[in-house]
Amino acid sequence: MEEISEKMLEYFKKVQESRPLIHCITNHVTVNDCANILLAAGASPTMAHHPKEVAEVTQGCHSLVCNLGATDDYEAMLIAAKAAEKVGHPIVIDPVGVGGSSFRREQFWKLTEVSHPACIRGNISEILALAGNQGTVTGVDAATDELTLVEKDILVKEFSRRIGAIVVISGAVDIISDGTKCIHITNGTPVMTRITGCGCMSSVLIGAYLTIENSIEAVASACAAMGICGELAEARMKEQQGGTMTFRLQLIDQMSKLAEEYR
Amino acid sequence: MEEISEKMLEYFKKVQESRPLIHCITNHVTVNDCANILLAAGASPTMAHHPKEVAEVTQGCHSLVCNLGATDDYEAMLIAAKAAEKVGHPIVIDPVGVGGSSFRREQFWKLTEVSHPACIRGNISEILALAGNQGTVTGVDAATDELTLVEKDILVKEFSRRIGAIVVISGAVDIISDGTKCIHITNGTPVMTRITGCGCMSSVLIGAYLTIENSIEAVASACAAMGICGELAEARMKEQQGGTMTFRLQLIDQMSKLAEEYR
Amino acid sequence: MEEISEKMLEYFKKVQESRPLIHCITNHVTVNDCANILLAAGASPTMAHHPKEVAEVTQGCHSLVCNLGATDDYEAMLIAAKAAEKVGHPIVIDPVGVGGSSFRREQFWKLTEVSHPACIRGNISEILALAGNQGTVTGVDAATDELTLVEKDILVKEFSRRIGAIVVISGAVDIISDGTKCIHITNGTPVMTRITGCGCMSSVLIGAYLTIENSIEAVASACAAMGICGELAEARMKEQQGGTMTFRLQLIDQMSKLAEEYR
Repeated sequence: MEEISEKMLEYFKKVQESRPLIHCITNHVTVNDCANILLAAGASPTMAHHPKEVAEVTQGCHSLVCNLGATDDYEAMLIAAKAAEKVGHPIVIDPVGVGGSSFRREQFWKLTEVSHPACIRGNISEILALAGNQGTVTGVDAATDELTLVEKDILVKEFSRRIGAIVVISGAVDIISDGTKCIHITNGTPVMTRITGCGCMSSVLIGAYLTIENSIEAVASACAAMGICGELAEARMKEQQGGTMTFRLQLIDQMSKLAEEYR
Repeated sequence: MEEISEKMLEYFKKVQESRPLIHCITNHVTVNDCANILLAAGASPTMAHHPKEVAEVTQGCHSLVCNLGATDDYEAMLIAAKAAEKVGHPIVIDPVGVGGSSFRREQFWKLTEVSHPACIRGNISEILALAGNQGTVTGVDAATDELTLVEKDILVKEFSRRIGAIVVISGAVDIISDGTKCIHITNGTPVMTRITGCGCMSSVLIGAYLTIENSIEAVASACAAMGICGELAEARMKEQQGGTMTFRLQLIDQMSKLAEEYR
Repeated sequence: MEEISEKMLEYFKKVQESRPLIHCITNHVTVNDCANILLAAGASPTMAHHPKEVAEVTQGCHSLVCNLGATDDYEAMLIAAKAAEKVGHPIVIDPVGVGGSSFRREQFWKLTEVSHPACIRGNISEILALAGNQGTVTGVDAATDELTLVEKDILVKEFSRRIGAIVVISGAVDIISDGTKCIHITNGTPVMTRITGCGCMSSVLIGAYLTIENSIEAVASACAAMGICGELAEARMKEQQGGTMTFRLQLIDQMSKLAEEYR
């Protein structure tokens, strides 16, 4: 499949070879999808989230993903992030819903105080809610669709530099920056916005890819893998005259089928 | 499709036009289904449930759905209900499981003390557990299948009048009353009882329709939409020689396909 | 279908006849799958997990399943287990993740102090984490794939005798012992390890079968039913050129279709 670049395929295969164990502290809505997309990609999930076990659990894993939608688990996230930091595991933060909740924004900043996340992945409104008020672009009040791609590039790059992590804005074009350069991933389909969970699944997949290599290319490859599976799933959905749940099933199916093909 | 009345189609289209944001405080079992049925119908879900954020979140939404199966979130429900009441958002209560849990019944009455729900939707045993002991029909001890349709009509109408909300008993025939009249919706299929989530999904869909118009017709239209999608899903399940999970997938698929057709 | 023994079919039909209500205190990741597999098999699930209601709820049910992945619900499990013990309901414990969490191991022993579980079901590493350090076989440090089937038989039988419960190790071969004899179930497929939830679903199904008869045959029949549905699902997945989510859908579909066929 020509859309899959050499680099992406390399990470794709390495995830399957190493079968990394990804510790996800993630929200209830999409926790099953997150577990299944990791299994489909050849990684292993653990969803442990009790403060009394997360330090022990995270040490036995290879990376940590904190999804801020898991609002009951903020204490656990802080403990796990410190433990992951100590043993040098990459940490991914998914700031889901920070745009509409000051409680979540506070937690984001607390998490970044106790740890150095490798990657922050959100949609444009979430990243703006965190970065916008200090950026040079348009501020948090800007309607998100008023931003041009160039402006978004600047936003992501500046926020990445300031926060010291790879930053991803998921959208029609995924924009990924490490503070120096920007990568654009154009794979995907608007159908991905008609189901819940694509953002959360992208974040845990990034968590898996970062265990192979802590690099912008690894993060971009995870985003590309999700996007490609989205395109394949849309094609199958249309063939089957299905709707959004057929798409959701096919999205994870295609990941598992790619994993069989490229291992 | 002739089963869809003019009125129902009108609401159906309006939900898609306005894309209302529905705040659901709902149980873990079916939270993913609830999010996906709302997205399929053209609405947007948020499942925020932490006491520290629900007041802020609900103000940014258009209606609130409290599902009593979310037993960890009763404090959050009280806060959210007060906040929703203040800004005039319609509130739906789904008294799931109140028949077998006095803890849930207590919470139901607490919620109705701090707010004026627009709609209560449950099955016959749940509504009986709340209404039966004061009704004139048969009392809570009655086997639910001993009630005739006429007796159920009286029960729903009286409970609706007493509680000041539209009341729905879901079942082979959905009975909806605003205290004055009763509407019967006969759409649906018994297969809906062989998966978990149809009741919960109906409740959040009612939450979406009530943002268009706070009326018995809006509630009945939401029930009809669920029932019609159930019928379509059953037909597809049989075509595909599938089982209950094929039905579940098709139920949400059909909602998303209807939404594409009628927008 | 010749793979289904007479005995298994008998339990299979009896579950549908009696429609037992299974009280599951189980983790968020697979709670929806657990509810749907029970419904597919003809049983009824309730997932109540609040300490204030579990005693009341469990008394209205026919068996109790405690999945240790529900780490927020340990107080509720203790209360429910005591209540189930009092009324003589069979209790199943699924010690998911005890290998990597001392917190979960502690909870396992607390649960067995307040109640006499009818069945413990886990994978080899989970059962080793509980039994290995006192067994005569190889100890908890042994790599799980170093054990022969004979060694596993000894492990299961000894642990069963010591703990006074039927013990199941799920795997390529399911090993079930009541301390006296061992039953091997060879149904199933490795695809079951590529989705989340097969272990959890097996545990709740065992909970349903134990309401028919508290015996090793009932437990083995539940394991066989899961394995057979796994085989049927794999065949359908291959026919449809599907992936792991097609398999998951088909697994529960096939259970519901078998239930239609054999009732």
